[in-house]
Amino acid sequence: MEWSEVGELPCSIARSLAVVGDRWTLLILREVFSGVTRFDAFRSRLGISRNVLADRLHRLVGEGILEMRPYQEAPRRHAYELTEAGADLYPVLLSLMAWGDRWRAGPEGPPIRLVHRCGAHVRPAPTCEECGEPLRAGEVRALAGPGLLSPRRRRAQKPS
Amino acid sequence: MEWSEVGELPCSIARSLAVVGDRWTLLILREVFSGVTRFDAFRSRLGISRNVLADRLHRLVGEGILEMRPYQEAPRRHAYELTEAGADLYPVLLSLMAWGDRWRAGPEGPPIRLVHRCGAHVRPAPTCEECGEPLRAGEVRALAGPGLLSPRRRRAQKPS
Repeated sequence: MEWSEVGELPCSIARSLAVVGDRWTLLILREVFSGVTRFDAFRSRLGISRNVLADRLHRLVGEGILEMRPYQEAPRRHAYELTEAGADLYPVLLSLMAWGDRWRAGPEGPPIRLVHRCGAHVRPAPTCEECGEPLRAGEVRALAGPGLLSPRRRRAQKPS
Repeated sequence: MEWSEVGELPCSIARSLAVVGDRWTLLILREVFSGVTRFDAFRSRLGISRNVLADRLHRLVGEGILEMRPYQEAPRRHAYELTEAGADLYPVLLSLMAWGDRWRAGPEGPPIRLVHRCGAHVRPAPTCEECGEPLRAGEVRALAGPGLLSPRRRRAQKPS
């Protein structure tokens, strides 16, 4: 299987990775969530090449994660801002941050602390909406959902 | 900046991405969380080349995410199993799945449903441990933590 086919799998993890699985993309989104919106600011903060940055921003716009808002006419310049789908990637970044805080922080502790608007320091962990317990791997079962059919079977089901 | 330097940034997201930011790595881990442990099973389920798979498994073992357990002597074969650090990546996969379920599922709905041991269908969302509300981007502030110093400053602080 080629990477370009991964987004076609009947798997929501694969479909998400087809959008954000590129190694620079989540770092670019980290900057957006920190309030960075402009090409040159991304570039100086991440130190990546113009070509790679332009390509990743273009893809994120094409995938509906970022949208471009003009802020200057001559020369024309755009700010990149999160769409609703983009803002919804926040839990992905939080979960990566939580893992890094726990397993890669070094003796001095985590580099950043998150404070919720309720005033509490937060260590994000996904919880069950029903019982409130943290979701651990051995305590969650995966069942077939309505969209599990493979693309081939789905095609075969379509009326001809 | 080269990708190889990303793990050196004083940022827990970057440090996590240095471990799992490779595009195939999280799909390999998805298989491990589904109970797959053997090289040939990874290969047939993911359809990736032997070389890429061997390289990614080797790195995951080196990073302390997977560990090898021998299950056959002649020829020698190993199963790959999650360490505690590896099991702790579950929220990363859950958050990717939740995003894909919401934004890439298609009209027929999500391919997989998760059921917590309490019996509830779960849509994983990170919540504040204190007030129980979902953590949304605009409602969480990032403050400097104890590990924010850059590696250079950290080196400069070390007694010589």
